[in-house]
Amino acid sequence: MAKQKSKETAVRDEEVQETFTFNISKQENFSEWFTKIVQVAELADMRYNVKGFLVYQPWSTIAIKRMFDIYEQELDKFGHSPVIFPSVIPESNFQIEADHVEGFAPEVFWITSAGSSGKLEERLALRPTSETAMYPLYAYWVRSWRDLPMKLYQSGKVWRYEGKSTRPFLRGREFIWIESHNVFTSLAEAEAQTKEDMQISINVMRDRFGIPFIQFERPQWDKFAGAIKTLAADTLMPDGRFLQLPSTHLLGDNFSKAFKIEYMDAEGNSHLVYQTCYGPAISRIFGALFSVHGDDSGLILPFEIAPIQVVIIPILAKKQAKKVLAYAEELKTLVSTMGYRVKVDTSDRRPGDKYYFWEMKGVPIRLEVGRREAKEGNVTVFRRDNREKSLISKENLKETIAFKADELLASIKEKAEKFFTSRLASAETLDELVDHIKNRKMVKIPFCSIELDGESCSDEIKDRLAGAEVRGIDVQEEHTPSENEKCFICEKPANCYVYVGKQY
Amino acid sequence: MAKQKSKETAVRDEEVQETFTFNISKQENFSEWFTKIVQVAELADMRYNVKGFLVYQPWSTIAIKRMFDIYEQELDKFGHSPVIFPSVIPESNFQIEADHVEGFAPEVFWITSAGSSGKLEERLALRPTSETAMYPLYAYWVRSWRDLPMKLYQSGKVWRYEGKSTRPFLRGREFIWIESHNVFTSLAEAEAQTKEDMQISINVMRDRFGIPFIQFERPQWDKFAGAIKTLAADTLMPDGRFLQLPSTHLLGDNFSKAFKIEYMDAEGNSHLVYQTCYGPAISRIFGALFSVHGDDSGLILPFEIAPIQVVIIPILAKKQAKKVLAYAEELKTLVSTMGYRVKVDTSDRRPGDKYYFWEMKGVPIRLEVGRREAKEGNVTVFRRDNREKSLISKENLKETIAFKADELLASIKEKAEKFFTSRLASAETLDELVDHIKNRKMVKIPFCSIELDGESCSDEIKDRLAGAEVRGIDVQEEHTPSENEKCFICEKPANCYVYVGKQY
Repeated sequence: MAKQKSKETAVRDEEVQETFTFNISKQENFSEWFTKIVQVAELADMRYNVKGFLVYQPWSTIAIKRMFDIYEQELDKFGHSPVIFPSVIPESNFQIEADHVEGFAPEVFWITSAGSSGKLEERLALRPTSETAMYPLYAYWVRSWRDLPMKLYQSGKVWRYEGKSTRPFLRGREFIWIESHNVFTSLAEAEAQTKEDMQISINVMRDRFGIPFIQFERPQWDKFAGAIKTLAADTLMPDGRFLQLPSTHLLGDNFSKAFKIEYMDAEGNSHLVYQTCYGPAISRIFGALFSVHGDDSGLILPFEIAPIQVVIIPILAKKQAKKVLAYAEELKTLVSTMGYRVKVDTSDRRPGDKYYFWEMKGVPIRLEVGRREAKEGNVTVFRRDNREKSLISKENLKETIAFKADELLASIKEKAEKFFTSRLASAETLDELVDHIKNRKMVKIPFCSIELDGESCSDEIKDRLAGAEVRGIDVQEEHTPSENEKCFICEKPANCYVYVGKQY
Repeated sequence: MAKQKSKETAVRDEEVQETFTFNISKQENFSEWFTKIVQVAELADMRYNVKGFLVYQPWSTIAIKRMFDIYEQELDKFGHSPVIFPSVIPESNFQIEADHVEGFAPEVFWITSAGSSGKLEERLALRPTSETAMYPLYAYWVRSWRDLPMKLYQSGKVWRYEGKSTRPFLRGREFIWIESHNVFTSLAEAEAQTKEDMQISINVMRDRFGIPFIQFERPQWDKFAGAIKTLAADTLMPDGRFLQLPSTHLLGDNFSKAFKIEYMDAEGNSHLVYQTCYGPAISRIFGALFSVHGDDSGLILPFEIAPIQVVIIPILAKKQAKKVLAYAEELKTLVSTMGYRVKVDTSDRRPGDKYYFWEMKGVPIRLEVGRREAKEGNVTVFRRDNREKSLISKENLKETIAFKADELLASIKEKAEKFFTSRLASAETLDELVDHIKNRKMVKIPFCSIELDGESCSDEIKDRLAGAEVRGIDVQEEHTPSENEKCFICEKPANCYVYVGKQY
């Protein structure tokens, strides 16, 4: 059974175990940084033998679970309830709404047989999104005005046969998301829901995850298949490209017409319902989160999300090693009692190696304990993002951790916002636009229209600017172009400002 | 747009809203009880137009989420870590282990095309279980003895093209589970893991969910495809049939041979690893849980699992309705601050209707508040399982809820154990066995062997006893048959006792 390995290889394995460094400039080599950190931090393994399908390792799985918890709790707070729908959709359901099927058909994986010989009666789509799975049931569930609003969401996987090149977390053929599908008696209530969705994005993504973004109304040629309007949050990656984060779609009565979802009002009259859907892709948001916050030494994770929130490193001199270890364990129990996820690293690596390793993994807070700390009942607290150390009494550990956790989030959020803002620009001429795009900025320009008549100008921008795209109108934007401002391309009067940039 | 409904229909809708009863004998009409409670409690909708695919409504989804939390925390406690693997398996991976593919091929849904025209290079199996998805990666991940034991689990869906008739929660073509896949340096450690898995089943299913069961070593002809031994927990449904709950499988080195999973020991020699897997199907356990604990008035849910743990019913006389409502809201805030999931039912149904409704839904604790309670700062506390009411001061609410929650679990657990035990019997002769099976008992009999040479006797039992099956040896069982005990069928000396019964 046993194969002999050369002594040298065995020794080399030993060394790999013992030393550790991660040092890549995120700003200058983002692509390399990204690929390496995914590998070294053991976020995901890309060697699964189906293109675009990712294996999530424990470090990302735990972080993603925390992100789901936070997102789901926020949805619950706003009166949404969870459901679980089948992952497969019969072809006949899938084809009910014409625009929707046109948009999604190119991306569908089809199940065509089952068992050894079994032909299925009908092809089954592996859901790329769940409108056509859920809405036939909505037609049963919605009966009277008393059933409305109906606000349901599910957490799970969807599958899309992506043509574009795939990238771990950011774009795959299988991804993990929440999709929220809501039903109302009026278009106004449905529009109000899209605003609530945008607020949820702010509450969770900006306030809890520290990710900056702009929420855009997408041009009509770039909306969700079957929607009447799409609002989408875009963040900025370190290489200056937009990444779409949650989008919310006003579906109007397009789907209720197709799926015959009607309610009866108090007088006994039937009406079509109005609908919205909202889809935060947690796997992608995690990709954005670690890309936005990481630094040249590796990951920086917000305290709430980190799989290990506090790591304790005992510094063991030959004398009193036992005492120091016992003290480290005492602190572990203490921190664990506070409800935090904590680990003592008792491996036989050198303390310096342990520091680098857990910094690379993004653990927010490190406690260093040596002979002196053990003797005096103190502990050295290290904060991952700014590398500040402070010596405190263990009596103050609880409030220090809580305080530093908050400080860390506030600080990485501010830093991310600063970077985001530094990448924004505006252009008065086509030449300025070209320059800014070269410098990897997101550029605000006056534009003819995001209705369908603006699409040809958008196409021309894409052609001339190496793929930079019109992302839409900033929904926070209040002022409109003055009379003499014109679209750079068609030279018609501009009716809005839009942002232009490259996307993932 | 609006269609006029007759006045009468509108009025009827109103009435349906107002009155409520559920009263079906679970013992006498279990099948009807089960079908109706799934519908009336809005656990699941069976109208999805793909056979065996269930739509989980909020009430079951929330309960199932709590069950996942409890199960995952228990696995974490025992040193398992979560991962997320792809839902699809390339046919070439799937076929690597011969017994495994033979066992599962009849149950696989196949993805054969993608996009509008897209032929896939290779068929993809929608995973029926994840050994063949995970173990190719395990071959990369396991390098040295330092990487072991490796204990990973994932929570998610699997799909099996079941030939048997499907039933919501109990048997479907899509179900929701946890699968834990573990790797060791020795067979002894792997066997120890199967014992740990059985302990986890006890800690969670018996102690937290209150479900009684026997853990069996399955006969060799009924083991997991690719395993060397299968240990499975069977509970008893109200109609006297066995339902298989979590099973743990000793895989030995069958899969490590096939997938080349090897580790290097401290001396640099390579060895095959030994493996186990464990698969609690949460959707099915939920089905068992509500079937075992429910009564003729509906669901009874353990406090930890109930989507709403405490429901408050204000009893509104015309006078002082405001005061009572305000008091109900005050209690809600109080209970919510304790960390419990609580709701005030302010709908315009009559209090009695509300009582029946929330009893049917299985809410463990009800607080009734009327004028008198509001005035005196008291509250009437009702416990769902035994229907006992007690009037307490609101000052004692916290400990009363905690106490009653514990009592409820202890009490429904005891009741379930009693029923379980009452269904067990043993037989000395074939005639006795036949009688007991007729009376829907689970019967212990002396048996020739659960090795492959016992299969023909097992088949004969199945034929003669209308489908009753040999479930295996109770792993807690210590004594073996005496010399003169014989197998009822072949009359060879019995080498073990087995249980025989009908299964779902």
